[in-house]
Amino acid sequence: MEGKEEDVKLGANKYSERQPLGTAAQTREKDYKEPGPAPLFEPGELASWSFWRAGIAEFMATFLFLYITILTVMGVKRSDDVCTGSVGIQGIAWAFGGMIFCLVYCTAGISGGHINPAVTFGLFLARKLSLPRAVFYMICQCLGAICGAGVVKGFMESEYEMDGGGANSVAHGYTKGDGLGAEIVGTFVLVYTVFSATDAKRSARDSHVPLLAPLPIGFAVFLVHLATIPITGTGINPARSLGAAIIYNKSHAWDDHWIFWVGPFLGAGLAAIYHQMIIRAIPFKTRS
Amino acid sequence: MEGKEEDVKLGANKYSERQPLGTAAQTREKDYKEPGPAPLFEPGELASWSFWRAGIAEFMATFLFLYITILTVMGVKRSDDVCTGSVGIQGIAWAFGGMIFCLVYCTAGISGGHINPAVTFGLFLARKLSLPRAVFYMICQCLGAICGAGVVKGFMESEYEMDGGGANSVAHGYTKGDGLGAEIVGTFVLVYTVFSATDAKRSARDSHVPLLAPLPIGFAVFLVHLATIPITGTGINPARSLGAAIIYNKSHAWDDHWIFWVGPFLGAGLAAIYHQMIIRAIPFKTRS
Amino acid sequence: MEGKEEDVKLGANKYSERQPLGTAAQTREKDYKEPGPAPLFEPGELASWSFWRAGIAEFMATFLFLYITILTVMGVKRSDDVCTGSVGIQGIAWAFGGMIFCLVYCTAGISGGHINPAVTFGLFLARKLSLPRAVFYMICQCLGAICGAGVVKGFMESEYEMDGGGANSVAHGYTKGDGLGAEIVGTFVLVYTVFSATDAKRSARDSHVPLLAPLPIGFAVFLVHLATIPITGTGINPARSLGAAIIYNKSHAWDDHWIFWVGPFLGAGLAAIYHQMIIRAIPFKTRS
Amino acid sequence: MEGKEEDVKLGANKYSERQPLGTAAQTREKDYKEPGPAPLFEPGELASWSFWRAGIAEFMATFLFLYITILTVMGVKRSDDVCTGSVGIQGIAWAFGGMIFCLVYCTAGISGGHINPAVTFGLFLARKLSLPRAVFYMICQCLGAICGAGVVKGFMESEYEMDGGGANSVAHGYTKGDGLGAEIVGTFVLVYTVFSATDAKRSARDSHVPLLAPLPIGFAVFLVHLATIPITGTGINPARSLGAAIIYNKSHAWDDHWIFWVGPFLGAGLAAIYHQMIIRAIPFKTRS
Repeated sequence: MEGKEEDVKLGANKYSERQPLGTAAQTREKDYKEPGPAPLFEPGELASWSFWRAGIAEFMATFLFLYITILTVMGVKRSDDVCTGSVGIQGIAWAFGGMIFCLVYCTAGISGGHINPAVTFGLFLARKLSLPRAVFYMICQCLGAICGAGVVKGFMESEYEMDGGGANSVAHGYTKGDGLGAEIVGTFVLVYTVFSATDAKRSARDSHVPLLAPLPIGFAVFLVHLATIPITGTGINPARSLGAAIIYNKSHAWDDHWIFWVGPFLGAGLAAIYHQMIIRAIPFKTRS
Repeated sequence: MEGKEEDVKLGANKYSERQPLGTAAQTREKDYKEPGPAPLFEPGELASWSFWRAGIAEFMATFLFLYITILTVMGVKRSDDVCTGSVGIQGIAWAFGGMIFCLVYCTAGISGGHINPAVTFGLFLARKLSLPRAVFYMICQCLGAICGAGVVKGFMESEYEMDGGGANSVAHGYTKGDGLGAEIVGTFVLVYTVFSATDAKRSARDSHVPLLAPLPIGFAVFLVHLATIPITGTGINPARSLGAAIIYNKSHAWDDHWIFWVGPFLGAGLAAIYHQMIIRAIPFKTRS
Repeated sequence: MEGKEEDVKLGANKYSERQPLGTAAQTREKDYKEPGPAPLFEPGELASWSFWRAGIAEFMATFLFLYITILTVMGVKRSDDVCTGSVGIQGIAWAFGGMIFCLVYCTAGISGGHINPAVTFGLFLARKLSLPRAVFYMICQCLGAICGAGVVKGFMESEYEMDGGGANSVAHGYTKGDGLGAEIVGTFVLVYTVFSATDAKRSARDSHVPLLAPLPIGFAVFLVHLATIPITGTGINPARSLGAAIIYNKSHAWDDHWIFWVGPFLGAGLAAIYHQMIIRAIPFKTRS
Repeated sequence: MEGKEEDVKLGANKYSERQPLGTAAQTREKDYKEPGPAPLFEPGELASWSFWRAGIAEFMATFLFLYITILTVMGVKRSDDVCTGSVGIQGIAWAFGGMIFCLVYCTAGISGGHINPAVTFGLFLARKLSLPRAVFYMICQCLGAICGAGVVKGFMESEYEMDGGGANSVAHGYTKGDGLGAEIVGTFVLVYTVFSATDAKRSARDSHVPLLAPLPIGFAVFLVHLATIPITGTGINPARSLGAAIIYNKSHAWDDHWIFWVGPFLGAGLAAIYHQMIIRAIPFKTRS
């Protein structure tokens, strides 16, 4: 029953053409084939150059991500008058979102452009990559983040410590539960956008989706920063939080650190469940 | 007379090739077929999974829309110095416009990506979806908006009340008529952009339009916010206004509340009339 | 000699494939045919519905352009503290650029999406539209601009006069020559981008150009505003300057008004010459 | 072994289909052919009109780039209150990044759209253009930059000197080593994005890449400015630094000037090595 994969038990899906905005769903639907889940382990994968190259690309991307963003944060914090002499809090949000846009654009064809252990975790749950690859990506991302934050510290010894080093923590006036909730929903927004943008069905319908995907993904990161910088400084990326925390290395950054792993992983997991269960309805599909 | 649908009584349309900017109108025009209007009621629609899934997607999108945007508004209002410690009024406009961009991108293929009862109303007037679907979408949008605003209130009990809760009302110095006018024209801009971006004729000419549609739609929302935040806080989305008003629940938010339903619905209706009558000239077309 | 139109007298153009960035020039080059110049007068044009519809679309687009942008300018000027309570000068630049992006996107397929007499003039010089159409467009644009500014004044009687009404004039500290120069170069940037984006040769190579064209055009407007708001308030659009001046109607707005017609028309003319002579080298091409 | 160019010695590249985000790598891979390196000297090149036209386009683009950006910088510096009366530091970053977006879009089909000697140097190292062309481009870029900065000075004699003339120098509180490092990594980000966006392999897979390339390239420039304006004022473009320095012509601008040539060229070289060695693995490929 190819070309009809949404045909779940509830009834015939003959109304999809009533979706008025942005659907080219009817045309070329036939091209589509849901790829099977990635196997948990793939024997020859570790011997391929593309596997190691993908790790290097993830390392480099996360390095540049932390370098540019933490430098922007420091530039804002350093200036005597945030408003006059710096790009402001909004500029910080642009730095995070814009770097994700650029780096996903650059590395999507090499490693898939995760640059974020939570994204890797969400895509792993949806069985889009193997376990060794997921673990390898996360390690490369964390190493890249530590190096990126370290280079920023090299530029500005004493101010770095004074101005918080870009490390995430729950702001005064919010409980740890607020911070955890903000991280969960924020990561949900990001990973939901990643799933929507990289949906195999959508790619089949229209082959330019991959090219356009980086823009909404970058925007999602920007928007979550607009909303949650006042609450947690916005993690939604455990590698970014870990890199900044290790280089900053003060106890109050470590106290809340678990939030920036548990929150993003829970949010990514919920997004994976939402997309696979509700949107794609994969478990309920009629087997063809 | 397929492929010639603009051929109205006034004269032969042989000059369309003089449109110098951005028209690929001549090529592949033949592919185009105006879809018939959606029937008011479609018997089997309610039994299809895609119908309910679309409602869930609208609920989730409106939930995330209110969550991120009201959280951003609260972050700006909360900060002691708007300029130094927050993303500013411009950041609020980016949050609203950017979320619409991301969410239309994500849900366009599932529900059409309305996320706004006024958009649903405009597309219903143009007979792009059935009546049950339109009503179902509006209910889902309103429920999503209430939940989204509710979660933000959960993060910040007392400040939420103090800082206005992101609820819309006509600002001091403007009459209710000004507010209504601002909502009408603002929604006109949004729904006019939605109609232009999702025009069936345009899609036939160039199949990437659906992919690019979310960007101008999001930008339209951003621009209306730039202009009318000082007047009404910018509704142009009855679900957004209702959600914030219910959670905030103070009498001065309810006093002006009718403006944020009447204005957007009038604006959407005018945009539907403008697009169908003037731009597509559907009532005057020669029947083939 | 189709497919070789750049082959001017200076030598064989066999090195075009050395252009390393962003050229798909080699593929599908054969599809390209330079359209002949539009005739100065086209007999039947005035009897076609598409001609009048294009005028209505230009009127409506310029109306909405002035409405949103002047309202944004007034919102910034009105606020006690520009920084805290408004979207700021940068927000004004976004309003102008963003509206052009949205409106060109919406009207490109109907009228070509000029929304600016200087753009119409530039395209007329390059013989992309007939004289009656050019004059008709300019009249519609000016009427739309007057109505748009008028509606904004309706919202805010006294403040409108006090805050300058968004009218263009040369700022204190600059000479009239500075203002004229700023308008000339600013309009050159805009019209050069319009020509590049709508180049017939480029469209032939890649059919998505029309869809992507609105984004750089909108950005060009945004950038010129970033640079020249402090000098003239940025015209680069005689309809916008005229509409604001007529509604504001104070002598100091009228004193400099000629600058905002002479400057943009000169800039547009130079851009047309640059594009047709240097980039397309049309006068020097070997006739085939 | 066409269509398999990643097949390096380490092992079979059979896992590329496991890249979950943004890869359409499997489809139409066969179309791809790595173009041979450009020869160092091409005999007839200097006799072709497209060669000289490319230089004119580079001159004009760099002229407009400096004109708009330095005018924006001066507008921000001039205003009594940066926050209230100007577009702010973030606006400066938008001016630089946005101009690169627009100008790359406009000139990509004519000259490749470098507008930056460091980009030309990086692409030359990767053998994407001949030596005479690279030298010619750099000269045109520097001349354009000088003219652009000169015109800005013409608008504002005394303030120009007072406000620093937009010239780059290492800010107080940073060492020359910090400045050099910031320029190296910043240019690496830019040139890495240029290589990713213009990758021949990617273009073969999807022919719209060239159209979309200007956006991430412009964003890369924007982001580097967000991060390093507080450190060096952000060069990453020797022509931009030279033009501003010559027109400003004060000794403290010349003292650090070598940084803005050595840094960008080193960064561009590293990006070229990273892309050709690691990402494309060209030296290690099996010869077919």
